[in-house]
Amino acid sequence: MKEISGGAAAALGFRANGIASGIKKKNKDLALIYSDAPAVGAGVFTSNRVKAAPVILSSSYLRSAWKRAFIINSGNANAATGERGMRDAKRIASEAAGRLGVPARQVLVFSTGVIGKFLPVGRIVGGMGPLIEGLGREGSSAAAEAIMTTDTFIKEKAVEFSAGGALIRLGGIAKGSGMIAPNLATMLCFLTTDAFLGRDALEKSLKSCVYNSFNSITVDGDCSTNDSVAIMANGAAGNRRILPGTADSRKFSEALFFVCAELARMIVMDGEGASKLVEVRVEGARRVSDAKKVCFAVSNSLLVKTALSGENPNWGRVVSAAGASGGYLEQDKLSVMLGDCLVFRNGSPVDFDKETADNEMKSPEIVITVNLGLGGKSWSVLTTDLSHDYVSINKEYS
Amino acid sequence: MKEISGGAAAALGFRANGIASGIKKKNKDLALIYSDAPAVGAGVFTSNRVKAAPVILSSSYLRSAWKRAFIINSGNANAATGERGMRDAKRIASEAAGRLGVPARQVLVFSTGVIGKFLPVGRIVGGMGPLIEGLGREGSSAAAEAIMTTDTFIKEKAVEFSAGGALIRLGGIAKGSGMIAPNLATMLCFLTTDAFLGRDALEKSLKSCVYNSFNSITVDGDCSTNDSVAIMANGAAGNRRILPGTADSRKFSEALFFVCAELARMIVMDGEGASKLVEVRVEGARRVSDAKKVCFAVSNSLLVKTALSGENPNWGRVVSAAGASGGYLEQDKLSVMLGDCLVFRNGSPVDFDKETADNEMKSPEIVITVNLGLGGKSWSVLTTDLSHDYVSINKEYS
Repeated sequence: MKEISGGAAAALGFRANGIASGIKKKNKDLALIYSDAPAVGAGVFTSNRVKAAPVILSSSYLRSAWKRAFIINSGNANAATGERGMRDAKRIASEAAGRLGVPARQVLVFSTGVIGKFLPVGRIVGGMGPLIEGLGREGSSAAAEAIMTTDTFIKEKAVEFSAGGALIRLGGIAKGSGMIAPNLATMLCFLTTDAFLGRDALEKSLKSCVYNSFNSITVDGDCSTNDSVAIMANGAAGNRRILPGTADSRKFSEALFFVCAELARMIVMDGEGASKLVEVRVEGARRVSDAKKVCFAVSNSLLVKTALSGENPNWGRVVSAAGASGGYLEQDKLSVMLGDCLVFRNGSPVDFDKETADNEMKSPEIVITVNLGLGGKSWSVLTTDLSHDYVSINKEYS
Repeated sequence: MKEISGGAAAALGFRANGIASGIKKKNKDLALIYSDAPAVGAGVFTSNRVKAAPVILSSSYLRSAWKRAFIINSGNANAATGERGMRDAKRIASEAAGRLGVPARQVLVFSTGVIGKFLPVGRIVGGMGPLIEGLGREGSSAAAEAIMTTDTFIKEKAVEFSAGGALIRLGGIAKGSGMIAPNLATMLCFLTTDAFLGRDALEKSLKSCVYNSFNSITVDGDCSTNDSVAIMANGAAGNRRILPGTADSRKFSEALFFVCAELARMIVMDGEGASKLVEVRVEGARRVSDAKKVCFAVSNSLLVKTALSGENPNWGRVVSAAGASGGYLEQDKLSVMLGDCLVFRNGSPVDFDKETADNEMKSPEIVITVNLGLGGKSWSVLTTDLSHDYVSINKEYS
């Protein structure tokens, strides 16, 4: 497996573009990813009980086999918009499909931005001509830019690898910062590959990769109404069909996981106002569910996050958050490390070197390890600190 | 029922004091509340799986009948301190008991402050002489001051009411700000009454009042290792014994609930860096558990809290947090009001007057009502906004 350029249009037979259609005041806000030939598609969507119209529509369109395009707008989430929101999403799919000369159900629609405002559909439809005309093999970065909201940099990644007797390409773009939490909070990711494989195999691989990458990042504990990860595979690589349970299938999943994990990491690094990349590892749990509860409680704790921002080795807050998580633990078996510095062992404080701990906290990347000392299960989450900038950005955004 | 002064020493036969023993650099840090005669006692403690040593000790001491004193230090939580922490807590109980001439099990010990540091027991024991000498009927405010950590004002309340043929007094002090969340996060409350009633009746009344007052406030979603609410009733009022299920018992519970709710409200108003007092009401739920999940998800959402801080009527964040809560709801039945302004009805945005909504958000007290439209159950929580000050305070505190 080797990294290549080209993002969501790195795979053969895919083109992309991103333009400013006028939803936002001046920035790019409309993206298209297009497959020259029919592709199989799969998607994973938000678990929020309030689902944006495009999420409802695209999940339903995914029940039919072939896909040709993803059309995505930023600047407006088309969420909490009732029946009119559904009509708007359908109109975007059918207008784009008409211009591309494909059935409406082969176009998946996605939106991100402010919740509760109706989409300016006229502007989006008006932008479709230039959007389609500008489609190109070099268009991934423009598409990645057009799906950004509070993101500060574009997020693209692509790889190539050999499987089924051919060279296969797989890549994607993502957006997200703020509201990133387990279960895909305010995050969009669009992936393409020229691999030849069945829809079931594609869906299974995608679900497993999403579970282990995007579902393990958390910036602020809120889940959004719009989060979606979607993939198209068009078979243009000419490989032998990748069948589930084979070595080829494992290679495909490895590549897909690598791209997802790299995009997830970029999303966390772009966490609103974040100054630190923090991994919270929980080990020694009796059950994975206990490890996850402790992991998310520690990584979502405001007191832990502000301590990280202040570079303060206040491990007591980690212990308190772990205890309040609802995950099973016994306080006299509990241990905590900040980086390589053991600060709490089997329920008692360790007389650690203050300077060593301070240095660990000054690092831009920090690992907090919580060992429950009860079993062999573990979980790990990527998160950030909480700074003044976070409050500033989110006070004003609407 | 009438409000009176005197806080935790308003009831007959109680005295209180607070002094600076040297745990903190200069402020008061050691408090004592003492009953001249044996009293029955009850307590409710944190649900955090990591419990501070004094919490473990005091819960165990409460199994025996009579109580004479609460001794409380601030500046150090004696939490996550292992066996040495337990020995320290026991020594404080026995040293205080020795000086007061009562059995050690009649003295309950409480601590609040930084987690993971050993208590300076010598200073605390050294302060006991002046602490006991200074006990007085006017000492409640000194005690209330001595239990403060990041609190910016002291919290006292007392009432008198007639029951069982006598005038009864009931009052208390509390501390808390930051880390306030359901299940008693970093909150201490000490109550006294001169009512005559049995231990079971006292405990039952306390649990019910705590469930409906302190468990419905939330500042930042973290639960602490030390939270405790404790009460002593010494019978000095001379009333006929208050029996469960009687009109007298209801009067007693009303008074106790009033004092707890007022103290809880003061804690929320003192929320670290808070500029708004916010009530989140969830109505129309199928089950209370659904209403509670939605209520706490909305009130703990960082995006909702920063929008409140920015006086931004961004109701989409309320809808998104509700949907992500795990509480059962159907998006086309969901409605939201900001104050008296209906902004979202049955899953669709309302074309509300922007100026009216802006004015609601400018108020120092805001009610957010979420109606699930599914049933008759409801829940309500008091919370605050999240401001720059919150981050500043918690970056530096340790």
